[in-house]
Amino acid sequence: MRIAIAQLNFHIGNFEGNVKKMLQYIEQARDRRADMVCFSELATCGYPPRDFLEFDDFIRQAEESVQHLAAAAYGIAVVVGSPARNPVVEGKDLFNAAFVLLDGQIIFQANKALLPTYDIFDEYRYFEPASSFDVFEFKGVRFALTICEDLWNIGNENPLYTICPMDEMMKDSPDVMINISASPFAYDHAASRIHVIRANATRYQLPLFYINHVGAQTELIFDGGSLVVSPDGKVFEELPYFEERMDVYNLDEVVRGGRESPQPKEKMSLILDALVLGVRDYFGKLNFKKAILGLSGGIDSALTAAIVARALGPANVRGVIMPSRYSSEHSISDANALAENLGIRVDFIPIEKPFSAFDKVLSPVFDDLPSDITEENIQARCRAVILMALSNKFGFILVNTSNKSEAAVGYGTLYGDMSGGLSVIGDLYKREVYELARYINSEKEIIPVSSINKPPSAELRPDQKDSDSLPDYEDLDRILYQYIEKELGPKEIIAMGFDEKLVRRVLRLVNINEFKRFQTPPVLRVSNKAFGMGRRMPIVGRYLN
Amino acid sequence: MRIAIAQLNFHIGNFEGNVKKMLQYIEQARDRRADMVCFSELATCGYPPRDFLEFDDFIRQAEESVQHLAAAAYGIAVVVGSPARNPVVEGKDLFNAAFVLLDGQIIFQANKALLPTYDIFDEYRYFEPASSFDVFEFKGVRFALTICEDLWNIGNENPLYTICPMDEMMKDSPDVMINISASPFAYDHAASRIHVIRANATRYQLPLFYINHVGAQTELIFDGGSLVVSPDGKVFEELPYFEERMDVYNLDEVVRGGRESPQPKEKMSLILDALVLGVRDYFGKLNFKKAILGLSGGIDSALTAAIVARALGPANVRGVIMPSRYSSEHSISDANALAENLGIRVDFIPIEKPFSAFDKVLSPVFDDLPSDITEENIQARCRAVILMALSNKFGFILVNTSNKSEAAVGYGTLYGDMSGGLSVIGDLYKREVYELARYINSEKEIIPVSSINKPPSAELRPDQKDSDSLPDYEDLDRILYQYIEKELGPKEIIAMGFDEKLVRRVLRLVNINEFKRFQTPPVLRVSNKAFGMGRRMPIVGRYLN
Repeated sequence: MRIAIAQLNFHIGNFEGNVKKMLQYIEQARDRRADMVCFSELATCGYPPRDFLEFDDFIRQAEESVQHLAAAAYGIAVVVGSPARNPVVEGKDLFNAAFVLLDGQIIFQANKALLPTYDIFDEYRYFEPASSFDVFEFKGVRFALTICEDLWNIGNENPLYTICPMDEMMKDSPDVMINISASPFAYDHAASRIHVIRANATRYQLPLFYINHVGAQTELIFDGGSLVVSPDGKVFEELPYFEERMDVYNLDEVVRGGRESPQPKEKMSLILDALVLGVRDYFGKLNFKKAILGLSGGIDSALTAAIVARALGPANVRGVIMPSRYSSEHSISDANALAENLGIRVDFIPIEKPFSAFDKVLSPVFDDLPSDITEENIQARCRAVILMALSNKFGFILVNTSNKSEAAVGYGTLYGDMSGGLSVIGDLYKREVYELARYINSEKEIIPVSSINKPPSAELRPDQKDSDSLPDYEDLDRILYQYIEKELGPKEIIAMGFDEKLVRRVLRLVNINEFKRFQTPPVLRVSNKAFGMGRRMPIVGRYLN
Repeated sequence: MRIAIAQLNFHIGNFEGNVKKMLQYIEQARDRRADMVCFSELATCGYPPRDFLEFDDFIRQAEESVQHLAAAAYGIAVVVGSPARNPVVEGKDLFNAAFVLLDGQIIFQANKALLPTYDIFDEYRYFEPASSFDVFEFKGVRFALTICEDLWNIGNENPLYTICPMDEMMKDSPDVMINISASPFAYDHAASRIHVIRANATRYQLPLFYINHVGAQTELIFDGGSLVVSPDGKVFEELPYFEERMDVYNLDEVVRGGRESPQPKEKMSLILDALVLGVRDYFGKLNFKKAILGLSGGIDSALTAAIVARALGPANVRGVIMPSRYSSEHSISDANALAENLGIRVDFIPIEKPFSAFDKVLSPVFDDLPSDITEENIQARCRAVILMALSNKFGFILVNTSNKSEAAVGYGTLYGDMSGGLSVIGDLYKREVYELARYINSEKEIIPVSSINKPPSAELRPDQKDSDSLPDYEDLDRILYQYIEKELGPKEIIAMGFDEKLVRRVLRLVNINEFKRFQTPPVLRVSNKAFGMGRRMPIVGRYLN
C-alpha cells in the first residue's frame, strides 16, 4: 500500500482552480504508483470559506467538485475535504466532511465531530458535529479517517470536548489513521501540533498520515508541515513548511518506523517565511502584482519593505519617501539606503505643500489654537493621500507598516499610517520587529543598521520620540503579551511584578483603541492571538477603562 | 403575586453602572409592591460581551455583581442574567445563566440550552449548553425560567435544534414562564418575535413574561418591546420600543387574559427610533457628546445629519460644507438649507487649496496621465483630512454617511467618504434612504426637497451622476437584497427575472469590495443582515468574481 499526501495551496471559492490543481496531483500520484492520495480539509472550496457556506450555490459547486474528482479517481483512491449537506432536518445544514473517492464513486464519507469554535474558528456557526464513527476498508487495509480537531482530544483529555472520535473508531480495529487538516501557523504552534499527532500514533499504536493545508487566506497563513508518524511515535516524515509538496510513502515502511526526519523550526525563520507567503498569496490570489509603501527611515517600514520585496520581487515594490518639516536628514538617508539595498524604486514627495494648504484652509476655524496631535495626524494623513493616489493611479496595493505594539495602544493615525490593504508586521511586537530585522541582516546588511539602532520616532513634531508618549517597549511588550496572548487581567499581571499604574494605563489604552483597530487592514497572523478575527472585542464598553 | 419586568439599557463591562441601575429598579419594584423583578439576559455585564468573557477577571466581576444584587434582594425576588462558570471540566468554561436571588442568596440558577451561533451571534464560542431543566418555586408559584433562544424551538420545530427546553420543563408542571432576553432589533423582527412568544404561551397554556434588553451596543440596537402574554395567546402588555421601562403586573390578571395592548410598529418609524438610539448610545457610552459630518447637499449626508441632530441635539452637531471645483451651486445651497432647518452650525471649507497642492506634488510622478478615479478619490480624502482634523482638534466624532447600496458595490472612497466612527445609515439601501427622508419630512420640511428630488451625484468630476457608474437603484437594491439578506446565488436571482449580466456584475462588485468594507466603521444594524459582524466573508476569494 502506497499512500500519497499532498499539501497544496487552495483558493477560497475558486472551485475550478482547486479542482484543476488536485486533478494534476492525482495524475502525478498515480504515475508514482500511489494507491491513495490525500488532500486537506475543505480542499474543494478552500479554508475558511466563512459565510459563503450559507449560499446554496456555493455548496452545489463544492458537490460538483467532488463529483469531478471522483470521475478522475480511477485506479487510485482520493481522500478530499469538502462541505456536505446534512440530510437530517434537525441541526446545522452542513457537515465538514472528508470523502473517499474511487472509480467514479464516493465510497465513504466521514464527518468532523469536534468543531473548533474559538479564536479564529467559527465551525459551529456552519457545521453539525458527527455523531457516528466508522472506518473504511480499501485493498484490505482499514482506515480511520478524521478531520483536523478530531485528533485534538486524545483520550478525552481536552476539556473542550466530551467525545474522542479515535477512541470510538478503535472498536472497528483500524490499521491506519488519516487526518486531513487546515491548521494555521503560529510561531509556537508546530510543537504542540507534533505533540498531538505523535501522541495519537502512540496511544493507538497506529501509523498516522496528517495532511495540512498550505498557503495564506487573507490573515491566516497555513503552514503545511504535514506529518507521517509511525506507531512508535517517531516522525517518519515532516513535509516542508510554507510550500506545496506531495510525497508517496510505503505503508510497511511507515509501520516499521524507527526513522526521524523533522524540519528545522527557528522562530524568526518561520515568521519570515510565513510573512513572505502571506504577502505573496494576498497579492497573487487577488490578482495584484505590485506594492507601494511609505519609507520613513524607521525600522517598521524598513522591515515591511524587506519582506514585501522578498515576496513580490524588488521590481514590484515601490517606496515613497515623504518628508515633512520635522523629518531628519538621517531618516531620508536611511530610507534611501534601504531602497538601494533592496533594489526597489523610490520616489521623493515632500508633504509640505499639502500640509500647509490644510493649515491654511483650517486656520479660520482653528483660530490661534496651539498645534497639537491634530497637526501630527494631518501629516500622517497627507502621506496616506499620496500613497493611495499612487495606488489608484498605477494599481499598487498599499502595504501597511504598523506593528502590534503600536496597534495595541493606538499609537498611529487612522486613515494615515494605519492605512493599507494588508498589515504585514501587525502581529509582531516592537521587540520582535527588531529581532526579525536583525535576523534578515544576519547574512548581509539589508535593513540599515542606523534604522535599527536609533531611538524610534514618528517625527511628527520637533525632536519627538516614541518614548515621549509610550512606556519603554521592553515593559510595554511584556504587559501586552500577558493581556493579549495570555488573556490575563490587571490583578494577575500586576502580581507578576509590573508597576500597577503602568499596567492599568496599558490595558486601558488597548481597550479604548478598539475603534481604531476595527478599521485597520487584515493583519497577517503569526502568533496565537493576533488582532483581527481571532480577537473579538466590543468597541463600546467600559471594561478596564 | 405581582411580577415586575424591567427593560433596561446596560453597558458592556460597566459592572458598577449596571448594578447601580438594577439596584435602583429593585428599590422601585419593592416600592410598587412587586414580589419579583426580572432583568434581561447577561444584564450584569451587558450583551454581547464578546471575548471579554475569556477573561477570568471579567467573570469574577460578574460574579461579584450577582452577589451585590443578591444582597439587595430582600423581600423581593430578583431574576437576572449573568455569565456563570461551568463546574464540569469537560465542555466550555461558562454558562449563559439566569439567577434567582432572594434574601441575600442565589436560590436558583437556570442555564441557556439553545445557543445561537449564526449571524451576529457567537454564543457557542463561549458557552456550554444546559442539559438539565428544572423549575423553581417561589411563594407557591412554579416558574419555568428560560433564556432568549430557549423559547425559539417550539415543540422542536426549529431545524437548528434538537432540544425544546420548555417541553422538558413541562414535566415539572410550571405555572408561569419567564424568558430573559437580549434580542436585537431588525425592522422585520418584531412580528416573528411576538409570534414565537405567543405560540409558547398557547402551546403550554401558561402566562409568559418576556424581558428584553433595550439600548445600543456599537452596531447592535436592542429594542426592548418586552412582552406579557396571557395563556390565551393575547398580548397583555407590550412595553414601548427603544426606551427603558419597568412595569408591575398582577399574575392573576395576566392569567385571566382577554386584553390586547400592542405597540405601533411602522417600519420607518421604528428604523428612525432605532438609529436615534444607536447614535445616542454610541456617543453616550463612549462618553462623547459632539458629532461632525460633511454636508454635500445630497440625500445621504442630509438624512444622517437629521438623525444625529435628533440623537444628540442640534447644538452638538457641526456640519462642514467642503466644495470642490466640481461642486454645484445647488449643493451648497441645499446643504445650507439643511443646516438651517436643523439648527446646526455649519462651516465652509473649500478643498481647492489642498487638492491643488496634492496635484502639484504628484505631477512629477503622474506625468501627463489623464485625470481618472485617482483625482476623484483625492477630493474625497481631502474632505476626510479636514473632518478628522476638526474631530481631533475639538473632540468631535466623525459620523459616516454611506448607505448600504454604495457600501455593497464599493461606490465610495476608502479613507475618504467611507471614514468615520460610526455608520448611521449604512444598513439602509438607497431607496430606504429616500423613504426615511420623506418620513422625516412628513410633518415639515427638514431635509430640503431638492436634496431628495435631484439625481444623486458624488460631484467628483464635471456633470457626474451615480447612474454613470451604477445600475439604476431600483434594480440594484432589489438584487442586493436577494443576495445579501436572502443569500440567494446568481442562478436563483436571475430566475426571478433580473438581467443576467446585471446580476453577475452586481454580485461580483459586492464580493470584490469586501476589502473596503473590512475597514469601514461599524454599521448600525436595522435589517436582518447588515454589513459587519453578522456577515463574515473572505477578502481573498474568487467566488462569483
